[in-house]
Amino acid sequence: MTDLVNRRWLLASRPEGEPKAADFRMEEAPVPEPGAGELLIRTIYLSLDPYMRGRMSDAKSYAAPVPIGGVLEGETVGEVVVSNHPDYAVGDVVLNRIGWQSFGLSDGTGLRKLDPGAAPISTALGVLGMPGLTAYAGLKNIGQPKEGETVVVAAASGAVGSVVGQIAKIRGARAVGIAGGPEKCAFVKDELGFDAVIDHRAPDFAAQLAAACPDGIDVYFENVSGKVFDAVFPLFNPFARMPVCGTIAFYNATSFPEMETKVPALMRAILTKRIRIQGFIVYDFAADYPDFARDMAGWIADGHVTYREDIVDGLDRAPVAFMGLLKGGNFGKLVVKVGQDPTRS
Amino acid sequence: MTDLVNRRWLLASRPEGEPKAADFRMEEAPVPEPGAGELLIRTIYLSLDPYMRGRMSDAKSYAAPVPIGGVLEGETVGEVVVSNHPDYAVGDVVLNRIGWQSFGLSDGTGLRKLDPGAAPISTALGVLGMPGLTAYAGLKNIGQPKEGETVVVAAASGAVGSVVGQIAKIRGARAVGIAGGPEKCAFVKDELGFDAVIDHRAPDFAAQLAAACPDGIDVYFENVSGKVFDAVFPLFNPFARMPVCGTIAFYNATSFPEMETKVPALMRAILTKRIRIQGFIVYDFAADYPDFARDMAGWIADGHVTYREDIVDGLDRAPVAFMGLLKGGNFGKLVVKVGQDPTRS
Repeated sequence: MTDLVNRRWLLASRPEGEPKAADFRMEEAPVPEPGAGELLIRTIYLSLDPYMRGRMSDAKSYAAPVPIGGVLEGETVGEVVVSNHPDYAVGDVVLNRIGWQSFGLSDGTGLRKLDPGAAPISTALGVLGMPGLTAYAGLKNIGQPKEGETVVVAAASGAVGSVVGQIAKIRGARAVGIAGGPEKCAFVKDELGFDAVIDHRAPDFAAQLAAACPDGIDVYFENVSGKVFDAVFPLFNPFARMPVCGTIAFYNATSFPEMETKVPALMRAILTKRIRIQGFIVYDFAADYPDFARDMAGWIADGHVTYREDIVDGLDRAPVAFMGLLKGGNFGKLVVKVGQDPTRS
Repeated sequence: MTDLVNRRWLLASRPEGEPKAADFRMEEAPVPEPGAGELLIRTIYLSLDPYMRGRMSDAKSYAAPVPIGGVLEGETVGEVVVSNHPDYAVGDVVLNRIGWQSFGLSDGTGLRKLDPGAAPISTALGVLGMPGLTAYAGLKNIGQPKEGETVVVAAASGAVGSVVGQIAKIRGARAVGIAGGPEKCAFVKDELGFDAVIDHRAPDFAAQLAAACPDGIDVYFENVSGKVFDAVFPLFNPFARMPVCGTIAFYNATSFPEMETKVPALMRAILTKRIRIQGFIVYDFAADYPDFARDMAGWIADGHVTYREDIVDGLDRAPVAFMGLLKGGNFGKLVVKVGQDPTRS
């Protein structure tokens, strides 16, 4: 492997507001040598997800930030190219957190072997992986949609939102999606089968949302916040539930943006409508993974769940793709193809 | 009964901001005649509770407002003086919702017979009644304090707060109370046995609260909001729970008061700390009543729970007592003695 180069993206500086190209730095380094019990993994796919914006900041959060000069974090699917580990063989395809680089080492901790025959391996980063489980577990543990209820989700064509709406439908609820632009809206309605979809760019967005939810909102799966939340908030029904897994609208904010909704109004609604709001990160519900994997594989097989991937070719393009993700530039689960996929011709 | 007069307080006008004397009107009316299957009840005690402020407004809430000219609502303990109902005899003491008046009719719906030998009958309006169940069920279903955790509650000398802290102690948690003035603070610490108490009138209130919660806050039982919430919010630990049963700070507000905490900051904390915030009203957890009644009777008997009543003499004084309640003027569970208590000499 010494003739190969490990290309990797480092955090050059902590972004102020929107990340810019200068916050990322590409470095070439020797491919590391696996020690005893270790594996060398070649990255095939790198997942890009909004939560990574948080890791670029040093604001206190549930996970430590990436240090300046450190390799950017991220989930990856890769191929074992050297194995000194008894459980893995060369050629195995594994899910890991190699981050934004073309090669990485592992001692096997947190590694999961994938079956390329069961599903396209990139889906382990999306519908069959962390974003899919986020939707599944957030609905199961907090949202708890019941038959006939109305479930609203933003970023509805994205990795989490698309699954939220489709599971809501499976549970017998009405799914209302919010997306940006006519192309995504058409996909959400026609391909994903949501009952209604609203374009958040419409000037009368809030009125359209109200019209699309004539019976109010029982579950709002919060991954955006900001003006979407402002429009959702007055429509909450008694006993509404709001799983909070993201607040993308604020990720690039340097100060807190003005919102129509104020804390006193929110508290009053929480009380009088007995709303439940609960934040979670997917790892809180890791125990749900086996049920999720079984259910989701079944739903994909029987056509209840459709997914869309937005695969960007080349590690070089990861920063640009990531910057676009935070502005809704992707269409479907955003994945960077870092190296050749031996399971697809 | 025709020689007796029913005195009652009507809602004269909807208060703008703080209720004032002119919003209440005393009326004298004939004592009503019970029909077939009905009871005539003489009010002994009337409960005054902050939620009644909401019933005076026509803002949308979980219960219909009192109409202009209607008798003000409230839970009461009374004595059956005429019975055309097979299950009740003259002299029975019953819990009911006669409201702010000296006599009322019932067909038995929602009536509960009290055992005067078991506990002072006024406690059915407080520690053994709705406020006690609010504390019990809010902690059981939402707050869920664990051993060693820190539970914070405001209005800690009041009907709900005093029980919240004492149950937290029974569950092995640390109880930190917030109250107004040295007398109430001393009571909370010395009589109720909270681990710490902070006077919200102190200029350095937020700093004192932080010092009293060196391990952060795991449960905040929200019955006040406003500046207390602003001080609590930065101290939340991961996986903190916040049952919301009241927002007294806003009940008299004509517009939404400024708070330091903004919705975006709140959402970010809910997400990164995985906080659970849930509103409830006590009737949502009516099914917990039998467990509550058994546990609370036991805790009072064995000294784990102490209570304090603030009994105001005479229905005439109900409006003044109620206006004071919203400003923390009471000390303990506020009850109006409307008529003679045959169980106390």
